[in-house]
Amino acid sequence: MITLSSDFGWPYPAAMRGVIAARTPARLLDVSHEFPRGDVHTAAFWLREILPWFPPAVHLAVVDPGVGTGRDVLAIDAGEHVLVGPDNGLLWPVARALDRAPSPFRLTSFEAPSETFHGRDVFAPLAAEVHELDGWELPAHDRLARAEAPVDLRFPDPNVCGRRAEGEILVIDVFGNAVTNVDGTFVSDSLGATVAVDGEPVPVRRTYGEVPPGDPVVTVGSHGKVELAVRDGRGANAFGVDVGSPVRLEKE
Amino acid sequence: MITLSSDFGWPYPAAMRGVIAARTPARLLDVSHEFPRGDVHTAAFWLREILPWFPPAVHLAVVDPGVGTGRDVLAIDAGEHVLVGPDNGLLWPVARALDRAPSPFRLTSFEAPSETFHGRDVFAPLAAEVHELDGWELPAHDRLARAEAPVDLRFPDPNVCGRRAEGEILVIDVFGNAVTNVDGTFVSDSLGATVAVDGEPVPVRRTYGEVPPGDPVVTVGSHGKVELAVRDGRGANAFGVDVGSPVRLEKE
Amino acid sequence: MITLSSDFGWPYPAAMRGVIAARTPARLLDVSHEFPRGDVHTAAFWLREILPWFPPAVHLAVVDPGVGTGRDVLAIDAGEHVLVGPDNGLLWPVARALDRAPSPFRLTSFEAPSETFHGRDVFAPLAAEVHELDGWELPAHDRLARAEAPVDLRFPDPNVCGRRAEGEILVIDVFGNAVTNVDGTFVSDSLGATVAVDGEPVPVRRTYGEVPPGDPVVTVGSHGKVELAVRDGRGANAFGVDVGSPVRLEKE
Repeated sequence: MITLSSDFGWPYPAAMRGVIAARTPARLLDVSHEFPRGDVHTAAFWLREILPWFPPAVHLAVVDPGVGTGRDVLAIDAGEHVLVGPDNGLLWPVARALDRAPSPFRLTSFEAPSETFHGRDVFAPLAAEVHELDGWELPAHDRLARAEAPVDLRFPDPNVCGRRAEGEILVIDVFGNAVTNVDGTFVSDSLGATVAVDGEPVPVRRTYGEVPPGDPVVTVGSHGKVELAVRDGRGANAFGVDVGSPVRLEKE
Repeated sequence: MITLSSDFGWPYPAAMRGVIAARTPARLLDVSHEFPRGDVHTAAFWLREILPWFPPAVHLAVVDPGVGTGRDVLAIDAGEHVLVGPDNGLLWPVARALDRAPSPFRLTSFEAPSETFHGRDVFAPLAAEVHELDGWELPAHDRLARAEAPVDLRFPDPNVCGRRAEGEILVIDVFGNAVTNVDGTFVSDSLGATVAVDGEPVPVRRTYGEVPPGDPVVTVGSHGKVELAVRDGRGANAFGVDVGSPVRLEKE
Repeated sequence: MITLSSDFGWPYPAAMRGVIAARTPARLLDVSHEFPRGDVHTAAFWLREILPWFPPAVHLAVVDPGVGTGRDVLAIDAGEHVLVGPDNGLLWPVARALDRAPSPFRLTSFEAPSETFHGRDVFAPLAAEVHELDGWELPAHDRLARAEAPVDLRFPDPNVCGRRAEGEILVIDVFGNAVTNVDGTFVSDSLGATVAVDGEPVPVRRTYGEVPPGDPVVTVGSHGKVELAVRDGRGANAFGVDVGSPVRLEKE
């Protein structure tokens, strides 16, 4: 199985599907091609949230604002999964979620017909080739060598001290929910009560449906993080936050 | 075969794909994940129009504004098909289109890692489990029991009296065509003539191409209903209607 | 393998998937259903760029503003591929890219339950039927006959004279890059230098990353054509061009 992720929208993902289908009969499943254009940070977050739900697979992910600038091409051995994508940090949060000690490899050489579409010309062929390797053993690929210092990307940790947490917004999802980096356990003893968000008390509930339509609510999202939401509305707007905004939570 | 439908946009549908692929080798086909957010009525319409074209399948459909509020989780035996989704009416129009007497079952218990993403945590696993049941026999699932009073949803019938019909707009499609609840047979003797729509005469044609670009036209849509359209334009705007708008048709 | 392309957005493509899945176990891969509505020219361009990357397949493509007006229904034998779609020029650029001498066939008769959704009622069933033919031999289909004068569509050739090229914009891609009809080889000796675009000098680079963010750049796109781009921006806006705009290039 090969999964595909990118910020390509349409129609470019289809070229990757074709290139892979021409090289391997592997099953293809799309993750999404709607990742925000060039936003490595947001894509890295979603890959970490989503790919671990898949059975062992080769995961191709391309959000690559540095295409053509000489950044490395990575394949990472992450437990039973392999991740293929650019060396810009994109793959590391999910790599660590999949495996305690992921092993990165880089492509030592490649010829790309284009300088602007490595998704089609470099990454997709590599994903197909890896899928054809026995046991997906990366050292068996003749142009993969250990990567010594790949670009890392880590999401910031919150400061949690007693009943206070200082965190930040990691992403805004399509529903407008603002996902913080504060672990959901922080509010688990506040269910049914309120927590102050930047000084304003907001009800903490298990689910959106427990507040009236249009009301703000603090909940624990499906990713296990504290989330600022509005029932039937966009939490990010109501709370006036964006990706990277600091957020201060204080329990009653 | 398992089909997937939701109002999740991206990237959440991929988590459902992963969860299912981790449990069954069943073929996965997307219907759409672009259903209008939380709009059970519109999604129910499209499921009824689209799913009957598929071969026997387990159809997972999640438009679930009541997630986490205690609404039931349903699996409906509908002839050769099985429908899995929330108990909010979503599944009934298509269930009746697929089978004369659909049999609804509800999940008697479940543990969800999240309270906000039952698509991933409850519905997708159930769809996979049902697909693994011999003959998709729902009573064989140890946590499915007959549902006694599931939430129903029915589209309103029009008032048709002689040469007049009083109906309403059921949905606006992506082309902007306004689909009424009046059966296409009502205008079958008006082809080539006009019908008055809320008092204004509009040509009735087999197809958009038979009027000049920009002109309004009454036609019979692919769903067999009378449709208010504009060639190369958006019928809903031109006719000034929205979902639920009453519409009065009178033949010459 | 059957690929699907259309301008249907959602949810109509799912009806085509269902119709095909009900007739053949063939693998289904989407190209895109986001082609600009009714824009045969743009869709024809992308089909030509994308389909040749696939292994031998039956390619169903429906961008069909003339649905229901009596235009023919085509199946084209194009080397190891077969193309199925409306007779409006859509299929010809890719047909010629796939095969030196494509053979067009037309459907001699069909009954469509609807006059407005031939994608579901005519094209999808035909694609499935063709896929079931031994060797995809079109003459073996009892309702396909040689098409005598199918509608052609050709992209305009540029005027290249010495160091000058007069071309036009063929498409704007989702990144906002304006793709010209001038072959990339025209600027291959200008890499690192500038070329005048409508009189204004613009750097020619292998890739977007070689100019500062926000700066215009002339590059060779993944389709091998000269492309007007802006790093991290929309080239079409910056250069003030749209599809069909003339563009004059002059090398230093």
